[in-house]
Amino acid sequence: MPEPAEFDRLRVVLVATRNPLNLGAAARAMSNFGFLRLRVVNPYEVAFQEARSAVGASELLARAEEYKDVAAAVSDCSLVVGTTAVRSRDVRHPLRSLKQGARLVHKELRSTQVALLFGSEKVGLSNEALSHCHWLMHIPAREEHPSMNLGQAVAVCLYELARDTHSFPKPAKSQLAAAGEAERITSVLLDALRASGYLHPKSATLTDTKVRRLVRRLRLQQSDAEVWLGMLRQIVWKLRSGE
Amino acid sequence: MPEPAEFDRLRVVLVATRNPLNLGAAARAMSNFGFLRLRVVNPYEVAFQEARSAVGASELLARAEEYKDVAAAVSDCSLVVGTTAVRSRDVRHPLRSLKQGARLVHKELRSTQVALLFGSEKVGLSNEALSHCHWLMHIPAREEHPSMNLGQAVAVCLYELARDTHSFPKPAKSQLAAAGEAERITSVLLDALRASGYLHPKSATLTDTKVRRLVRRLRLQQSDAEVWLGMLRQIVWKLRSGE
Repeated sequence: MPEPAEFDRLRVVLVATRNPLNLGAAARAMSNFGFLRLRVVNPYEVAFQEARSAVGASELLARAEEYKDVAAAVSDCSLVVGTTAVRSRDVRHPLRSLKQGARLVHKELRSTQVALLFGSEKVGLSNEALSHCHWLMHIPAREEHPSMNLGQAVAVCLYELARDTHSFPKPAKSQLAAAGEAERITSVLLDALRASGYLHPKSATLTDTKVRRLVRRLRLQQSDAEVWLGMLRQIVWKLRSGE
Repeated sequence: MPEPAEFDRLRVVLVATRNPLNLGAAARAMSNFGFLRLRVVNPYEVAFQEARSAVGASELLARAEEYKDVAAAVSDCSLVVGTTAVRSRDVRHPLRSLKQGARLVHKELRSTQVALLFGSEKVGLSNEALSHCHWLMHIPAREEHPSMNLGQAVAVCLYELARDTHSFPKPAKSQLAAAGEAERITSVLLDALRASGYLHPKSATLTDTKVRRLVRRLRLQQSDAEVWLGMLRQIVWKLRSGE
């Protein structure tokens, strides 16, 4: 199969997976379709060890990278896409069908790394995990039974991503900032908002999520991220020097 | 979901399946994508009973029809399509990719019944089973690891069959902020940069232009513009109150 460089830029990120069979199934589908970079965030530890030591467990699973939180797992990715079974989980997130979304993911993979997030079997992605996503993708399914098995959902998403490999769209012109950069900007912006009195400590958690989403929607370019960071740091420094 | 009449003409036929989890997974994917007619041929009997009696086993599995051989299971179908992991299993059979094959299956489903056969986990479809097929369909996968898990293969095939049937509504395109809004933000941002000492008056004109371009590159959304303006105004107010 095709274009290893592009496929190599996708990070499949399994968040809080509970069932070792699903970890194994996801890894198998990844291997089938040629996406070999697996990341796991806060998996149920017993399940992760069991999946890794299963007979016939893949190289891919053995090489999976483990992270404490979503922020760390996506920090080197410029586009972060969440998957969801329901059509209107969160109206603040743009929602795309797998077919539409895969085209955009392809475009991005021409030049930068993309994270594709799958939530836990029972509850999907948490609001905290969702707040790191630029948009959500959903597999069109029957309304009476939209919720797919995790291993099958991974297989279907990767199939769609591999499906038209030979007709990739043109590369994205501008390179987007990596998630780690956006997170740094979010953090300094929050400092500025606190120092200016815009934010009050008691509403902090809610607002952190809102501000993170606000920054993600900017689609910051890599070449501009440093400038914004510099401006915000200067503002924070000045705000604090007056305290 | 769409076109129930067409979907209702597909028979998913699992031949000599061994693992109850795979029977359950296949049934779940069928339910997800709206293909509700399952036939099993000579399943490993214990597995079939176990799958049927599993907690949460579907109606669909309960209503599955059991056959002694492939001939009986496909006798009312005009087109019989086998699935295979390998690309050149049997040169006597035309082989099509899933994408190509699904188009032909669709065409047929408009007027007649179609059987889609999946073989056992270990050996796939036997030569006897293959002899009932008009042609074979295969899911393009990595040469080093082409063999898919049965439940995942069923999910991917049915996804492709359902893929173009329904037109998922496009997400409401987020409306970008008008130029006037961007300009107001630019202006308040410049105030903040001056008040914080980031900008020096003598390089002003050049920097105004740079900052304006920086803000335009953000692709600010209309619904967010007001929030950004509010944050920046608060920051400017605080910066000036300390002067």
